[in-house]
Amino acid sequence: MPLRIPRCTPRRARVQVTGGRRSQSVDVEARQTSGDDVIAALKFNADGLVPAIAQQHDTGEVLMLAWMDAEALRRTVATRKATYWSRSRADYWVKGETSGHHQAVVSVAVDCDGDTVLLQVDQTGPACHTGTRTCFTGREIA
Amino acid sequence: MPLRIPRCTPRRARVQVTGGRRSQSVDVEARQTSGDDVIAALKFNADGLVPAIAQQHDTGEVLMLAWMDAEALRRTVATRKATYWSRSRADYWVKGETSGHHQAVVSVAVDCDGDTVLLQVDQTGPACHTGTRTCFTGREIA
Repeated sequence: MPLRIPRCTPRRARVQVTGGRRSQSVDVEARQTSGDDVIAALKFNADGLVPAIAQQHDTGEVLMLAWMDAEALRRTVATRKATYWSRSRADYWVKGETSGHHQAVVSVAVDCDGDTVLLQVDQTGPACHTGTRTCFTGREIA
Repeated sequence: MPLRIPRCTPRRARVQVTGGRRSQSVDVEARQTSGDDVIAALKFNADGLVPAIAQQHDTGEVLMLAWMDAEALRRTVATRKATYWSRSRADYWVKGETSGHHQAVVSVAVDCDGDTVLLQVDQTGPACHTGTRTCFTGREIA
């Protein structure tokens, strides 16, 4: 059975509260619950990971691809700081934690198959550890 | 030892031929050889695959992520038609072969770690099998 990913999840889910009153806290709660449901339903690979693409939100540059487990994605959504799972260090890795080259998260989307994450971010400085703006900069092969 | 990915591979490698004569065919040959070397050196996963991101070359939209083995990448470079490895069908898959929603390849880059491919493409019609422009369209979770 295919994974059901919402066709259009509103950025800030609205919950109709009995009596008609809405509050900021209800909105946030609904959004987070919706996000958690989708995160739990993602198709993680055998290592419990999905690829996450980071894209500069205004220029459209594809900055890098890294990996997330469910907890990394939850932390990313909760803190709005891109947080990945380092396969080499086997630990969580808040982008920019040591380099200062943070990724402030603007939005998070999942794909139709629920096995890839796309982050729209605001990248401080170069995204690549080699110092290039993106991890693909100057690395064209064709 | 880290994989050596060229910092800047020219789109059309120039080969200095003895006698000083250069031809179109020499250029193409050099470019393809360079690409083959890089492809052979990529870090494929345990299944022999790397993730490949397809991005619309002019708008910057991230269209989809699919998977390639070395042969799929070679075919993509040679034919300029995005060709992936379908993990579910265990076969090569020329994007748009059945749907008509082709991806004409403008350029191909690899990342600093040599384990991700970024294609700049010209997408005909929707990229997603669900009919949305990209596989992420309308699927924001935060």
